[in-house]
Amino acid sequence: MLKGIFITLEGPDGSGKSTIMKMVADHLRKKNLDILWTREPGGTPIGERIRDIILDDNNQDMAFETEALLYAASRGQHVHEKILPALEKGQIVLCERFILSSLAYQGVGRGLGIERVKAINDFAIKGLRPDLTLFFHVDPATTLQRKTSKKGGDRLEKEGVDFHKKVYDGYMELLDKYPEDIQIIDATKPIEEVFKQSISHIEKILKRRGVE
Amino acid sequence: MLKGIFITLEGPDGSGKSTIMKMVADHLRKKNLDILWTREPGGTPIGERIRDIILDDNNQDMAFETEALLYAASRGQHVHEKILPALEKGQIVLCERFILSSLAYQGVGRGLGIERVKAINDFAIKGLRPDLTLFFHVDPATTLQRKTSKKGGDRLEKEGVDFHKKVYDGYMELLDKYPEDIQIIDATKPIEEVFKQSISHIEKILKRRGVE
Repeated sequence: MLKGIFITLEGPDGSGKSTIMKMVADHLRKKNLDILWTREPGGTPIGERIRDIILDDNNQDMAFETEALLYAASRGQHVHEKILPALEKGQIVLCERFILSSLAYQGVGRGLGIERVKAINDFAIKGLRPDLTLFFHVDPATTLQRKTSKKGGDRLEKEGVDFHKKVYDGYMELLDKYPEDIQIIDATKPIEEVFKQSISHIEKILKRRGVE
Repeated sequence: MLKGIFITLEGPDGSGKSTIMKMVADHLRKKNLDILWTREPGGTPIGERIRDIILDDNNQDMAFETEALLYAASRGQHVHEKILPALEKGQIVLCERFILSSLAYQGVGRGLGIERVKAINDFAIKGLRPDLTLFFHVDPATTLQRKTSKKGGDRLEKEGVDFHKKVYDGYMELLDKYPEDIQIIDATKPIEEVFKQSISHIEKILKRRGVE
């Protein structure tokens, strides 16, 4: 078993994951815990180059299969080069977006199928599983409102309302399919409340693993 | 069934595929056949960007899984954007390297396993199969000699003798595993003889498909 603890933060665009991730990292660092804070897609130099291809607004004709394989390729490098070594050293890894995002966006949003996208990801990450996944739940109306008030955006952010509704339905299907692996956070609550919910799940796992 | 005919040319580095491919394309064009001549990795703008990442000599720490997924991602785009549309139009597609290369290089050379690499490729190419695969067979001693007389080379070409021997063993295993799908060409023979062997297989399939 790996010494470290692997925590992923998942949820649609505009669900506030990044803000909470920063608060959680600060909180854990104050307790002198050794944190690695990272995100997908990207996270490594090779992964950043892959990310540039995925999100490049010029690549409108990218096959959905290619998109899914590029996310998996980037994730494989991230796990190999950064996440696994950190877990071996005993660090607490906080990662914004991981497999669940691919299952929702490519598996359901793009219609490639959850099981098929899961298979290429299992290949990529050599069986690694998060110790804890927090899902930041907001209803689609809220994220769409936050989304449309933001100008520009990359190739995926620019996808239409129908796509983002499918992604939301995908997340709901996944929560139903893997209820024991995912902790749902009500991200429509005030930020301090969302932080409290998140930290309570994290502290539970730290205790269970004897970290504090 | 697709109107066109899909022919792939496979074999280790230095087996002379590129030279023969040019001769075959010229020969078929003289008969006024509509040819698409392409190669992997690459073949599309997105694929070329992926190819640059794969072959970049600086990416020494690339996970084998990432390498295999990038090849599959590039292949998926190639099939989606170029090969399938050409086959739908009725063109004869000549493609240098396809799935067999990934099965030999990543499946066996990198030790990821033939079946696992085949699965991610099946995902990538939506079940497309070549109508004819020509394998250019030369013994490892010959390719290594041709290889070492060539300076420089990309990240994969620079791999050591052991790796290229494993790839050769991989090809032998694949010829054994899929004997009906692959035509073996003795590429140690003089070039005119190699061309004749290749064209005789190609003309057989053209006749069967009513093209000439």
